[in-house]
Amino acid sequence: MSLVRVHNFSISIDGFGAGEGQQLDAPFGHAGTRLLEWALPTRTFQQLGFHGEEEGSNGIDETFASRWASGIGVEIMGRNKFAPQRGPWDEDWNGWWGDNPPFHTPVIILTHHPRPTLTMDGGTSFHFVDASPAEALEQARALAGDLDVRIGGGVSTVRQFLEADLIDQMHIVLVPIVLGRGERLWDSLEGLEQRFHIEAAPSPSGVIHLTFARRH
Amino acid sequence: MSLVRVHNFSISIDGFGAGEGQQLDAPFGHAGTRLLEWALPTRTFQQLGFHGEEEGSNGIDETFASRWASGIGVEIMGRNKFAPQRGPWDEDWNGWWGDNPPFHTPVIILTHHPRPTLTMDGGTSFHFVDASPAEALEQARALAGDLDVRIGGGVSTVRQFLEADLIDQMHIVLVPIVLGRGERLWDSLEGLEQRFHIEAAPSPSGVIHLTFARRH
Repeated sequence: MSLVRVHNFSISIDGFGAGEGQQLDAPFGHAGTRLLEWALPTRTFQQLGFHGEEEGSNGIDETFASRWASGIGVEIMGRNKFAPQRGPWDEDWNGWWGDNPPFHTPVIILTHHPRPTLTMDGGTSFHFVDASPAEALEQARALAGDLDVRIGGGVSTVRQFLEADLIDQMHIVLVPIVLGRGERLWDSLEGLEQRFHIEAAPSPSGVIHLTFARRH
Repeated sequence: MSLVRVHNFSISIDGFGAGEGQQLDAPFGHAGTRLLEWALPTRTFQQLGFHGEEEGSNGIDETFASRWASGIGVEIMGRNKFAPQRGPWDEDWNGWWGDNPPFHTPVIILTHHPRPTLTMDGGTSFHFVDASPAEALEQARALAGDLDVRIGGGVSTVRQFLEADLIDQMHIVLVPIVLGRGERLWDSLEGLEQRFHIEAAPSPSGVIHLTFARRH
């Protein structure tokens, strides 16, 4: 059974998954890199090219971080994760990740401005789709075969899939900072805990890993 | 050195310390007892009379819960913790706790409607004070001698003392529920983590205990 999964999704202790003022040189707005600091030293993120040539850590953070790609056949992301611009496309923009993005699967990008599919190196392709979460998931499953679908963010995309009750497994990383402003993950999700079994594991880095598994 | 401490202060994972619609028969509003469920089985809360005659649990929750009274010389609480009414006093109201309240120390109640001190059984007295957090703390320290001062809540009282940077130690209990509405603890506290060293301990009950210790 193919599952819909969220991985490595960091929020501040006051519930913000991104800060205020997102723009080209500040994709997380005033949050800077603070929501990702826990992940950067891990082997998984080192191999994604975040820090150069270091070997990368093993430990609790790496254990959680490393699960993101295994068994995934497609990612769905919001347009705001793919690009800093809003509105009609600057078609020179092909993502933040260069010619060989780290996904290595098809990626569905939710947008009200469809454009032709971009085929990148290394197995990644970007498919631009104007659809509801349920419709996008149907397209994703067709691309994913028997593999799982990852909801890659940003905040409003994860929230919309939670609202539509389309997520089976979710890994949230609580970062002990108070961002104060930005985009809140939990808004409109009152009672979410009734749908999930939730466990917590603190890491020596200071963050708390939360796993959400759909109750059956 | 006398410290200012917060204990057993529960919030939902979306940051609410109380739900919406607080009233006489629902002091936590639509949250009901969900923010306190972790604490009710503990020996400390059993002895406070929450569940009758059970022996009460020992374990991680009890370890955190039991610290609330030790070394405390006075509590400061907001008026909304003391009474469900707002505005001028119904002077028949002497708190939720009966003739022998569980504080056994002086308690300062912050209110814009001062009234005479109430002397209760068992060492508790209620002092009604119209003052800023800093002024109230000065009065509390005079009553506490060398002992510590506990900030007893509710949400806005804890937040005001955090805003004024008057809290040295804080124990927050993250309850994995999404309340969706009510009173938020973290609002207006952007950057709070710069003032505190924060650690986390998950409990088998599902909650996460957070300790905040002032950085020096």
